[in-house]
Amino acid sequence: MAGSSFGELFRITTFGESHGPACGCVVDGCPAGLRLDIEDIRKELGRRRPNPNSTVSTSRSEADEPEILSGVFEGKTLGTPIAILVRNTDQKSGDYENLRDLYRPGHADWTWEAKYGIRDHRGGGRSSGRETVGRVAAGAVAQVFLREYGIEINAWTSAAAGLVFSRPDEAGFDRDEIEKNPLRIPNRAQAEQALEKLEKIKLDGDSAGCVISCRVTGMPAGLGEPVFDKLDARMAAAIMSLGAVKGIEFGSGFAAAQSLGSLQNDSPVRGASAVISAVPGGAVPGGAVPGGAVPGDAVPGGSAAAAPGAQNGPAFAANRSGGILGGMSNSMPLEFSAAFKPIPSISKTQTTCDINGDLQELIIRGRHDVCLAGRAVPVVEAMAALVLADMILLNRAAKV
Amino acid sequence: MAGSSFGELFRITTFGESHGPACGCVVDGCPAGLRLDIEDIRKELGRRRPNPNSTVSTSRSEADEPEILSGVFEGKTLGTPIAILVRNTDQKSGDYENLRDLYRPGHADWTWEAKYGIRDHRGGGRSSGRETVGRVAAGAVAQVFLREYGIEINAWTSAAAGLVFSRPDEAGFDRDEIEKNPLRIPNRAQAEQALEKLEKIKLDGDSAGCVISCRVTGMPAGLGEPVFDKLDARMAAAIMSLGAVKGIEFGSGFAAAQSLGSLQNDSPVRGASAVISAVPGGAVPGGAVPGGAVPGDAVPGGSAAAAPGAQNGPAFAANRSGGILGGMSNSMPLEFSAAFKPIPSISKTQTTCDINGDLQELIIRGRHDVCLAGRAVPVVEAMAALVLADMILLNRAAKV
Amino acid sequence: MAGSSFGELFRITTFGESHGPACGCVVDGCPAGLRLDIEDIRKELGRRRPNPNSTVSTSRSEADEPEILSGVFEGKTLGTPIAILVRNTDQKSGDYENLRDLYRPGHADWTWEAKYGIRDHRGGGRSSGRETVGRVAAGAVAQVFLREYGIEINAWTSAAAGLVFSRPDEAGFDRDEIEKNPLRIPNRAQAEQALEKLEKIKLDGDSAGCVISCRVTGMPAGLGEPVFDKLDARMAAAIMSLGAVKGIEFGSGFAAAQSLGSLQNDSPVRGASAVISAVPGGAVPGGAVPGGAVPGDAVPGGSAAAAPGAQNGPAFAANRSGGILGGMSNSMPLEFSAAFKPIPSISKTQTTCDINGDLQELIIRGRHDVCLAGRAVPVVEAMAALVLADMILLNRAAKV
Amino acid sequence: MAGSSFGELFRITTFGESHGPACGCVVDGCPAGLRLDIEDIRKELGRRRPNPNSTVSTSRSEADEPEILSGVFEGKTLGTPIAILVRNTDQKSGDYENLRDLYRPGHADWTWEAKYGIRDHRGGGRSSGRETVGRVAAGAVAQVFLREYGIEINAWTSAAAGLVFSRPDEAGFDRDEIEKNPLRIPNRAQAEQALEKLEKIKLDGDSAGCVISCRVTGMPAGLGEPVFDKLDARMAAAIMSLGAVKGIEFGSGFAAAQSLGSLQNDSPVRGASAVISAVPGGAVPGGAVPGGAVPGDAVPGGSAAAAPGAQNGPAFAANRSGGILGGMSNSMPLEFSAAFKPIPSISKTQTTCDINGDLQELIIRGRHDVCLAGRAVPVVEAMAALVLADMILLNRAAKV
Repeated sequence: MAGSSFGELFRITTFGESHGPACGCVVDGCPAGLRLDIEDIRKELGRRRPNPNSTVSTSRSEADEPEILSGVFEGKTLGTPIAILVRNTDQKSGDYENLRDLYRPGHADWTWEAKYGIRDHRGGGRSSGRETVGRVAAGAVAQVFLREYGIEINAWTSAAAGLVFSRPDEAGFDRDEIEKNPLRIPNRAQAEQALEKLEKIKLDGDSAGCVISCRVTGMPAGLGEPVFDKLDARMAAAIMSLGAVKGIEFGSGFAAAQSLGSLQNDSPVRGASAVISAVPGGAVPGGAVPGGAVPGDAVPGGSAAAAPGAQNGPAFAANRSGGILGGMSNSMPLEFSAAFKPIPSISKTQTTCDINGDLQELIIRGRHDVCLAGRAVPVVEAMAALVLADMILLNRAAKV
Repeated sequence: MAGSSFGELFRITTFGESHGPACGCVVDGCPAGLRLDIEDIRKELGRRRPNPNSTVSTSRSEADEPEILSGVFEGKTLGTPIAILVRNTDQKSGDYENLRDLYRPGHADWTWEAKYGIRDHRGGGRSSGRETVGRVAAGAVAQVFLREYGIEINAWTSAAAGLVFSRPDEAGFDRDEIEKNPLRIPNRAQAEQALEKLEKIKLDGDSAGCVISCRVTGMPAGLGEPVFDKLDARMAAAIMSLGAVKGIEFGSGFAAAQSLGSLQNDSPVRGASAVISAVPGGAVPGGAVPGGAVPGDAVPGGSAAAAPGAQNGPAFAANRSGGILGGMSNSMPLEFSAAFKPIPSISKTQTTCDINGDLQELIIRGRHDVCLAGRAVPVVEAMAALVLADMILLNRAAKV
Repeated sequence: MAGSSFGELFRITTFGESHGPACGCVVDGCPAGLRLDIEDIRKELGRRRPNPNSTVSTSRSEADEPEILSGVFEGKTLGTPIAILVRNTDQKSGDYENLRDLYRPGHADWTWEAKYGIRDHRGGGRSSGRETVGRVAAGAVAQVFLREYGIEINAWTSAAAGLVFSRPDEAGFDRDEIEKNPLRIPNRAQAEQALEKLEKIKLDGDSAGCVISCRVTGMPAGLGEPVFDKLDARMAAAIMSLGAVKGIEFGSGFAAAQSLGSLQNDSPVRGASAVISAVPGGAVPGGAVPGGAVPGDAVPGGSAAAAPGAQNGPAFAANRSGGILGGMSNSMPLEFSAAFKPIPSISKTQTTCDINGDLQELIIRGRHDVCLAGRAVPVVEAMAALVLADMILLNRAAKV
Repeated sequence: MAGSSFGELFRITTFGESHGPACGCVVDGCPAGLRLDIEDIRKELGRRRPNPNSTVSTSRSEADEPEILSGVFEGKTLGTPIAILVRNTDQKSGDYENLRDLYRPGHADWTWEAKYGIRDHRGGGRSSGRETVGRVAAGAVAQVFLREYGIEINAWTSAAAGLVFSRPDEAGFDRDEIEKNPLRIPNRAQAEQALEKLEKIKLDGDSAGCVISCRVTGMPAGLGEPVFDKLDARMAAAIMSLGAVKGIEFGSGFAAAQSLGSLQNDSPVRGASAVISAVPGGAVPGGAVPGGAVPGDAVPGGSAAAAPGAQNGPAFAANRSGGILGGMSNSMPLEFSAAFKPIPSISKTQTTCDINGDLQELIIRGRHDVCLAGRAVPVVEAMAALVLADMILLNRAAKV
C-alpha cells in the first residue's frame, strides 16, 4: 500500500517533492522486449511543461530532463524496474517561507499536517502538481507498450472558465492542431476565446477550473476485472488521484442518471460491418443536464465510432456507455471526462487561519498557472495509459 | 488482485452468482474486539432487499438471511476472517434460457464473454445486482466499526427520472423519514411525485436512472493516502465499481470545473468555535451547471457543516471541497454524488445481436426494478463504509 | 493484506475456526473455462483427513464434505470467485474449557492474545491445523489447473521421529504405494518401523516431528518473479505459513552452505537429449551435514531428472539447485523439504502459566495426532500448487 | 506485484542492474516524523561493501555513496516516498562480453532468458548481488525506525567452508568485535582459521558457502499476521529472496523435526521476573542432527534470553521456537539461520552450454568474492529489518 504506487502488474511508484532534489518514478512490471527510447519519455514530459509562450502558465521553468537509471538494455526493456529520474532545478523556496505556519485555502496544508504531523511547506511539497512528473514519465512507458496493441489515447480540454468547447471531429481528429494551442482546445477559435477569458481572470487575481475529456481508440474487448477492479473503477481511481480532480464520468455520465433505459442502451450490432449512427454535436461536458430536464432530452455523452474490425464480436449502434459494460471494455472507444477545480493558488487577498487558529490575511506568491487546461491533458493521458497497460496484463490471466 | 477483493487492511472478498447456490463475503482485517451481532448485518441486507410494497421494484423475493461462519466469538470479532453466507433461494433460471446466446443491450453479456469465453447467462451471473449482497453484508461490519469513531454515513436519492430532489435538512436530518419511502427521497412530497413518474415509465416498458448522494459526518482529518490512494480516489473506485454507476463527483464536482478559485476555496477558520455559514439551497446533483454559465454563478456542491469540536485544527467556512483537500479528509463532512444509469433490463422490444452476429428481437423477461433509486442507497453506504474503515486502519501507520 | 489471503493472480482467502460453524476458502482468479468437479476437491480433503485406521491419528472425525457455492457453471470455472464451504461437525468444545485462561506450551495461545486481546480457546481457534481445510480445498483447484500444464506435485514423509526414510524411486515413483500407509512414507518397511516408533512415543504421552519432502515435475522454465517474489521465496512463504513448519530448504539446502562451488554448480547441457547423471542415494533430509564435515563430503540435496524435452533450452547435469536458479525455475524438478516440529499437544503433564502469570500444571485433553507425518503431505502439495498456479499466471505478463 | 517491491505498509521498491547507471530504492510508507540522516544509510552501505583488506573479497570497488532524493525534510521523514540513489561507478562490462551467449553454471542466465527472452549479461544484470544495494539502503531506514521500539538486529556468520563457528556470547554480545573481521565470525580465532581455509579454496579456483544466523532482541509480542503472513513466513520470503539462499530455519529448525514435543515445547513462565535457564553451547547451524539421531539428542536451536520486562505477559523457559509461536512473535528473541550456497562464479574451468545448445569450456573472468560470509551479514539484517518494520505497522490495525 502506502500510497505512492499504482497498478498491479504494470506497477509504478513515484517519488519527489516540489522543492526537493528530484522527482521520478520506478516502473515495475513493464514487459520485457519493448523498444524504449529516452525520447519517448522526454516528449511527454515536454508536453506537460508550462508552455513558455502562454500568458496563463506558471513561469517556473524546469528542464524536466529524464534519465533512465535501470531496466533498459541496448534499447529494449529488460523486464526489470525502469527507474526514471528528473532533477528539480528551478525551485524558489524562499517564495514559500511565509506559508510555513499557514493553511492555504483550497490546498492540502492542513490535511497533510493532520495526517503526518509534519509537512514540506515549500511549493506544497508532495501535494504539488509537480508530483505528476513521475506519472507522466511512467505513462510515457505505458503508452509505448499500448502502441503495440494499436491503442491510442487522446485527451483535450472540453470546458474551461465557464466555456464549453466542441468535441474534436471524429473522422479527422487532429492531434497536432490541439497541440498548437497552450490550452489544448480542439477548435482554434474557441481556444482563442478561452485564452482571452483566462487572461482576464488572471488580471482579476483569480483562477479557473476546466474539464478534460479523453477518448481511447483501438480498445480490445474484455479489459477490466469484475467486481471491484472494473475498468471504470480503476480509471476513476487513477484520474481522481490527480490533485485537483473533483469528478469523473464515463459515456453519458450524469446525463444517463436523468435519462431512460430505452435511450441509454446501446444496441449490439454485427461486428465490423456495422454502420454506426453518428451522434452529432456530442455531450456537454460535465453531464450537464439542466435540473428539470425531461429524461428524453438527455444528450448521449459519448459519440459512436466504428468498433475495430478485428474484434470477433458485436459492435454497438451508439456509445452512450463510453465503451464500458459491466466494468469491462466492449471494444468501442473508451470515453470519459474529468472535472478539475480552479487552481487554489490565487493572487487575490484571502483570509485564512494559521496553525494557532488565528486568522491571517494571505497573499500567495510563487509562480502558478491560472487554469490546468492544457497542461492536465498529458497527465490524464498518462494515467489512462497506466490503467490500460495494467489491465492488458491482468487480462492475460483470464482464461485457461 | 483478481477483482473480487477490495481494501488493503480492512479487506473484503465477495463471491456469488445471481442464480448460483449462494452469495456472500469474507471480511479479513476487521480489528479484534468489536461487538458484532448478526442483527447488524441482517438489518442492512433488509434495507437492500426490494421493498415488497413498492410498485416499481422487482418481485424477486429473497430472504437474504445471513449466516456468520467464522470470525466472531462470544459476540466479538476475533481479528480473523468473518465469512458471511447468504443463500439464494428464489431464482427462476428458466426465465433466462432465451438469453443464453444473446447479448442484451446495456448488459455485460458480451464483455463477459469477450473476457472469459464463458458466462453464466442466468440473471447476469456475477454481473447481477445481486452481487451487492456481499458488499452490503461486509459494509454492515464496517459500519459497526465506524460507529466506534462516531462516523455516520447517510445516503439518499437526490435525483431520478429527470426530477431533482431537495437535500435533506442539515440540522434535522431524519433518516427514519427517508427510510419510509421506497425510493429513499428525503422530501415526502417529492417522493410521491417521483413514484408516480416511475410508475408511468414502468407502464411504458422503460426504466430510469438516478443520482445517489452521500454525506459522512464525524470525519476525522487526515484520512486518505497520497498520492494514488487519496480518499476521493479510493471512494471513486469503490462507488464506480457498482455495476450501473457512470459518474461520481465530490463537493462542487463538475460545477467547480466551471467556477473560479475565489469561489471554490473554502477558508480555514478557527476550529470548534467557528461559525460556519450555511449554504442554503444546495447543489443540483450531477454538477449541473448549464453549458454557458458564467463561472460566478457556480453553485457550491456541498453545504457547510460544523467540524467536530474535538478536532485540533481549523474548521472551514464552507465545504465546496466536499470534505477533501489534497486527497485527505479535512474534518468537514465528506460529500459526494454518484450517477446511476437506467436499469438496462426494459420490457420494451429491443433489437440486439446474437453470438452469431445475427440481429434478434429481444423481449426481456425476468423480474426487474424500474430504477435503482432507493435500493442503491444502502449499497452506496456500504461501499463508503468499507473505504473509510480501511482508511482509518491505514492511517494508523502514518506517524512514528 | 490482513493475513488470510495468499497469491496475487491466483488468489485465495481462507476462513474458519476449529470449533466455529465452518471452514472454507474463496479462490479468486482461477482462469475461466477449467473443468472442475466437486470430486477433485473432495478427494484432496479426504487425503487430509485423519486416517481412521491409524493408531497415531486424532479420533476427531469430520466428514469434510465440500460444497461449491459459486464460480462453477455447467462443470466449468467462470473466472469468478470459487467459494468452497466445509462445515465443522465434530467439535467437542467442552474438552477445551480448562484452557480458557491458560497458555499452552508450544501453542499460539499467548501470541494470539498479545496481538488481538481476544482468542477462541476452543481447539486453538484459527491457529488450529483445521485451518488447512481451506488451503487444501483451494489447492485442489490449483492442482486441476496445473494438470493443464502437465505439472505434477508429489510430497512424502522423508523423516520422522528420528528416522530417515529413503527417497521414492525416481523411475518408478509410486504414488499409490505412498498413499497406502497412513504416514505416507515411500518405503513400506520403513513405514512400519516408523509407525511402531510413533506408537511408543504416543504411549509415552509424547509427540514427534517430521520432514516432508516435495518434488514437482513437468516444470516449465522461467517461473518466479525476481527480485522479491522469487519462486523459492514465495514457496518458502507458502510452506512456512503452515503452523508447525520451522524450516525449509531447496535442493542441497543447508548442505550447500558447507559445500564448494565446483560441487554445487549444476552444468547446463544440451536440452532434451541430455543424459543426466543420476545421483544415487539422495539427500539426508534436513540438510544434514554433520558439524565439521569437509565441504567435499556434501551430499547434493536434489537428485537429477530429465528436463522436459519440450523445453527449448538446456537441461542440467545435476539438480543440486532443486530446480531454481536466480529465483526462477530452470525446468528441472522443483525439490524442497520442510521441517515440521512435533505436535505441541502432548498428554504428558506440563507446567505452564495462566493469564495471571501463575504457574499451573497442564494436562491436555482433546484429540490429537502424534505426528504430522502423512497428514501434512496433501497440505504441502496444496500450498505448492497454489504458488505454482499463481506463478504461471504472473509469468504471462513477462514479455511483450 | 511485479517482483521488485517488498512489504505492505513499510514498502520498498528497488531498481538497478549491476552494470547499469545506478542502483537504489524507494521506501514508501516509512512513518513521518522519524529523524533520518544520510549517515544512517551510508554506514550500512559501507558494511555491505567489499572489505578492501580482505584477501577473499572482490576487488570491484564502488563508492556506494547514497543520495536521498525525496521524503526527508529538515532531517525528518515526511511520510512520503524516500528515494535513495547509488550510482554504479566501477563496472568493467568488457569482462563479460564472452558471456553474452553462454549460460553460466549456477547462475540465472538461462532462467532469465527463459522468462524474459532478453537479459543483461554484464555482471548478471539484475540477478547480481549488486541488487542488494537497494535492499541495504532501505533496510537502513527500517533499522532507524526499529530503534524507536528498542528492537536490535544482529547477524553473524555461523558456518562457512565446512567450519562451524560458536554463537556470540549472549551476555556480552560484541558487535564491534564481529565487525573487526571481514567474515563477521564472532570468535576471532575461528575467524582466522576460516580465512585461511577460504584462501586455500580461492587458490583452488573454487568458492564456498556459508550459514548466516540472526538474532533480534527487544521483540514485542504479537508481530505477524496469521494465516499466510506469519512472521516466519514473511521472514522466510525476505531471506529466501536473496539470490544465493537455499534454506532457512527458525529456532530449532530442522532439528525440531527429529525431536519430541516434550523437548521442543517452551514452557511459559511468569513474565519479567522469570529466571530463564540458559541453554549452553547452542545449535549447530543448519539444523544439523545427524541422520539417525535419537530424538532426545536434539539440540535446541535457539538459546534462551530474558523477555523484556515491559511485556505484560509470560516469558519462556527456553527458546526452541526461535521467538515465534503460531506465526507471531512471543517476545523472546527472534532467531533464524539461512544457508547461502557457494558463489557460483569460480575460476576453475567449467563445462557449460551456449544458447545454441553447444557445449563450451567456460573460464569466468570478472571480480568475485570467494564466499558471502561477512558481506551477507548486513544484507540479512536489512531484510530482517524490513520485515519487522512492516509487521509493526500492520500490527497497529489488529485491535479496535
